[in-house]
Amino acid sequence: MRIIAIIGLLAAVLTTVSFLPQAIKTIKEKNTESISLGMYTLFTTGVFLWLVYGLMIKDVPIIAANLVTFALASFILGMKLKYK
Amino acid sequence: MRIIAIIGLLAAVLTTVSFLPQAIKTIKEKNTESISLGMYTLFTTGVFLWLVYGLMIKDVPIIAANLVTFALASFILGMKLKYK
Repeated sequence: MRIIAIIGLLAAVLTTVSFLPQAIKTIKEKNTESISLGMYTLFTTGVFLWLVYGLMIKDVPIIAANLVTFALASFILGMKLKYK
Repeated sequence: MRIIAIIGLLAAVLTTVSFLPQAIKTIKEKNTESISLGMYTLFTTGVFLWLVYGLMIKDVPIIAANLVTFALASFILGMKLKYK
């Protein structure tokens, strides 16, 4: 595999899984005080549109990455709404 | 412009600017308690790799979006390290 493809894949994996520690921290601490509602509203909407975009152009990596990110980001958004 | 391109652009703008309200909130409140250090470490590294990827494949939208996101995410990471 080319070095460029490896860097792109690693970038996609990191930006996708990064929301997992935030989700876990929020579950454990039930505290979302310093998390921005505006950020998660805009971000979750944006990731949903990335998912729609991936489905429209039938791009499996875009669909897969944004499906995972959408699940995690919408969960964190739900926790923010629940514990605000 | 095709509807697919508009959705992709809107997705890119939303996921990029979404970190601005978080950065502003953090500046105002100087509180990063419920923000995950793990998330911002992984996310900032991932966005940096997206930037490297964009430079390697010479893709202006990837470079532009990730330059803005990298600036905002690394700023929030810095605030987390300062106020933790």
